[in-house]
Amino acid sequence: MSTALTNAISLIEGNITTPLGFTANGLHCGVRDQNKDLALVLSDRPATAAGMFTTNLVKAAPVLVCQEAVADGSARCFLVNSGNANACTGDEGLRNAREMVRLASQSLGLEDSEVLVCSTGLIGRQLPMEKLRQGIPTLKSGLSREGGLLAAEAIMTTDAFMKTQAAVVKTVYGEYRIGGMAKGAGMIHPQLATTLGFLTTDAAVPPDLLRKALAQAMDASFNSITVDGDTSTNDTVLVLAGGASGVEITEGESLGVFTEALCQVAQALAKMVVRDGEGARRLVELVVTGATCNESAKQVADTIAGSLLFKTMLAGGEPNWGRVVAAAGRSGIFVEPHRMALWFGGVQVLESGLGMDEHLAEAGAALQAPEVRIVLDLGMGEGEATIWTCDINEKYVVLNGSYMT
Amino acid sequence: MSTALTNAISLIEGNITTPLGFTANGLHCGVRDQNKDLALVLSDRPATAAGMFTTNLVKAAPVLVCQEAVADGSARCFLVNSGNANACTGDEGLRNAREMVRLASQSLGLEDSEVLVCSTGLIGRQLPMEKLRQGIPTLKSGLSREGGLLAAEAIMTTDAFMKTQAAVVKTVYGEYRIGGMAKGAGMIHPQLATTLGFLTTDAAVPPDLLRKALAQAMDASFNSITVDGDTSTNDTVLVLAGGASGVEITEGESLGVFTEALCQVAQALAKMVVRDGEGARRLVELVVTGATCNESAKQVADTIAGSLLFKTMLAGGEPNWGRVVAAAGRSGIFVEPHRMALWFGGVQVLESGLGMDEHLAEAGAALQAPEVRIVLDLGMGEGEATIWTCDINEKYVVLNGSYMT
Repeated sequence: MSTALTNAISLIEGNITTPLGFTANGLHCGVRDQNKDLALVLSDRPATAAGMFTTNLVKAAPVLVCQEAVADGSARCFLVNSGNANACTGDEGLRNAREMVRLASQSLGLEDSEVLVCSTGLIGRQLPMEKLRQGIPTLKSGLSREGGLLAAEAIMTTDAFMKTQAAVVKTVYGEYRIGGMAKGAGMIHPQLATTLGFLTTDAAVPPDLLRKALAQAMDASFNSITVDGDTSTNDTVLVLAGGASGVEITEGESLGVFTEALCQVAQALAKMVVRDGEGARRLVELVVTGATCNESAKQVADTIAGSLLFKTMLAGGEPNWGRVVAAAGRSGIFVEPHRMALWFGGVQVLESGLGMDEHLAEAGAALQAPEVRIVLDLGMGEGEATIWTCDINEKYVVLNGSYMT
Repeated sequence: MSTALTNAISLIEGNITTPLGFTANGLHCGVRDQNKDLALVLSDRPATAAGMFTTNLVKAAPVLVCQEAVADGSARCFLVNSGNANACTGDEGLRNAREMVRLASQSLGLEDSEVLVCSTGLIGRQLPMEKLRQGIPTLKSGLSREGGLLAAEAIMTTDAFMKTQAAVVKTVYGEYRIGGMAKGAGMIHPQLATTLGFLTTDAAVPPDLLRKALAQAMDASFNSITVDGDTSTNDTVLVLAGGASGVEITEGESLGVFTEALCQVAQALAKMVVRDGEGARRLVELVVTGATCNESAKQVADTIAGSLLFKTMLAGGEPNWGRVVAAAGRSGIFVEPHRMALWFGGVQVLESGLGMDEHLAEAGAALQAPEVRIVLDLGMGEGEATIWTCDINEKYVVLNGSYMT
C-alpha cells in the first residue's frame, strides 16, 4: 500500500450526524417567530469534548456555562437555541442557561456537565423560558441519524443557507468520519468569528489531543475569516469525539492526520460562513507572502481584510490597489512599499511598489468574479498567511441598519 | 480686569488668512479635470513651523519631502495639490515632489526648505508635471488676504463642503489670531485622519513650543475622529506662526492659552471632516467615562467607533445597545459588563449591564437626530475620552465602490 493511500482524507457531503454514534434533531419552539430555533446533537456513548470560545470580555451566559461544562474534557450533547443570544442578561441569564442545561440533562438522563449549551441571536433580552421548558424535552423523541439537517437548520439566524460538511478518513487502522455544522453570516472575525461551529467524530480522541487538534484546526479556518471585524459575545466552536468507529487517535502521525481532517471540515464550514457574509457578492482569498514570519503575514492580511475601503473596493470590483498598499502600511508590521508586488485574480497590478497601469483593465475584470484570489508579496522573507473575506456592500448596510425591526 | 477677560478665546468665522501677515491663492491647473486643484498659503515674513504626519509606513512622496523641510522648525508657505496623492510613485514621485517645491521656491524667491508641500487624491499615479510646471508659477500673482477661501476650495477632493475656521485670542499682551482649513471626508481615522489640516497664526511662537502645542491640539481634534478606520498615506497637519500680531507665546499660561485656542480651531475643523464623512447622515459624539485611565477610555471609544456594526446601527438609528457593549468587550481593555451604563442622546438604555427595554422607543427617537451624543460609563474609574464619528450607510459604500471611475 502506498503512503498516499495509507492516510486519505476525503471531504464528502454530510453533516453533524455523518459520524457513527450521533443522532440529532431540530425544531421550532417559539424563541423565533417562525423558523426552527432549537437543536440537539447527541452521542450515544460517553464522548470526549473540547471547545474554543469568544475572546470578547462580554461573554454571553451560555458561553460561561459551556466553558465550565467542557473543562473536564467530556460531554454527550450540544444543545443550541437561535433567535436569542442570552447575552447581557445578568444573573437571570445565567440561571436560564443553567435551566436549559437541566431541561436537556433530565430529559436525556445525563449529568448537567454532559450538556454543552449555546445560544445565538439578539443581545440583551431574556430567553422566553416557558417556551424552552416546553420545547427542550420534546427534542429527544425526534432524534435520528437524519436529524443532522434539522439541527443545521435550527441554528441559523440571518444565514441565507445551511452550512454542513463531512469528511471520511481512511487509515491503516480503519476508517473514521468527521461531521460538522456552522452558523454565521455577519459579525464574522477571527478570534472567533461570530459563529457557532459544531464538529463530531467517531474516532476516539483523548481530551488533551482533541483540544490540541481543535486549536490548530481553528487557526486555519474559523480564525482565518473576517466579514466585518466585529467579535461577538457568543462565538463558540465545539467538538465531540465518540469513538464508534473503533479508530483511536494517538500522538504523532495519527493526530496529524486527524488535525488535518478536522481543519479541512472546519475550513469548508468557515468559507461557507464568509460566502454567506450578509449581502456579500464575492468570496476573496487573501494571501500575504514574503513577510518576515507567518505572524507578521497574518497581521498584514488581517489589516487589509479589515479595511472598509478594501471591502468596498471588492464590492465595486475596481482594482484600486492603493488601498491594499495603504492598509499594509498601517498594519503595525514593518513593510517597505518598493518591495511590494500585488496580484488581483492572477493579474499583476504592482511591481516593486509601482502600479502597472497597463494591467488595470484586466485586473478589474478579474475582480468581478464571484471568487477572487488576491496575493500581496511583501518581498521581505518567507512568512505567509491566507485569510478569507468578502466585500461589504449596500445590502450589508441596509441589513445591519435594521436588525432589530 | 477679571481673569476671564485676561485670556479670552473666541471662535470666529474666518480662514487660513485671518491671521495678519498671510495671503493665499487657489486655482485650477489641470491635475483634476475641472475643479480647483492647486493652493498656496504664504507668510509675508519668516515663520516658525511644525507638522504632524501619517503613521502609515507607506508615506506619500510629499510627506517625506515635507517632513524634511519642517524639521528645522521654520518655513514660509504651504503648497498643496488635490486630485493626485503622489503616493506609491517611487523615485519619480520623490523627484516630482521636490520639483513642486522648487517651482514654488523659485517663483516666490524662497529657499526650498521654506516650502511645505502636500498632495491629496488618487494613489499610484504620477503627477502631471507639465501642468504643475505651468500652474505653480502663476499662483503668486493671485495671492491675497481674500484668497484664503480659494485655497480652502482648491484642497477639496470628495469633500461636500469647504472647511475653514478661525479664532481670536485676547490676552493682556494683546490680541492674536489663529486660522485654519482642512480637507477630508472618507478614510478618516486617528493617527491621523486622512486629512490635510493647515493652521496659521500671527502670534510669534518658538519652534519647540509650536511643536508641543500642535501635538497636544491634535490629541483632542484630528486624532479623536474616525469615519472608517483607514489611515492614509498622505495625512498631514501643518502650522505656521508668523508673529505679525506682536504677541509672543512663552512657556506657561501663555502657551496653555495658545494650545487651547489651536485645539479649538483644530477641533472645529476635525468635526467638519466627520460631518462630511462620505455620505454620512449624523455626527456622533461618543464619550467613554468611568475607565481606569484616559488611555483605556480612548481605546474603548476607538473600538466602538471603529465597529462597523455600531456604525450601521447609527445609519439605521436603532438603539441596538448590545453592539456597543460587545465592541467594548473586545477592545482589549478589561471591562465588566455588569458595571456598564449607556445613554443614547440622553436616554439611558443600559444600567448595571442590563437593558432598559422601557426606554428603547425614546432612545430610538433620540438616535434619529443629526447630532447625537452617546455616553458609555464603564463604572471602573475616572478615565474618560471623547471621539467624534459618523454613521456608515449605503451612500458610503456606493461612493467608495467606484472612486476610480
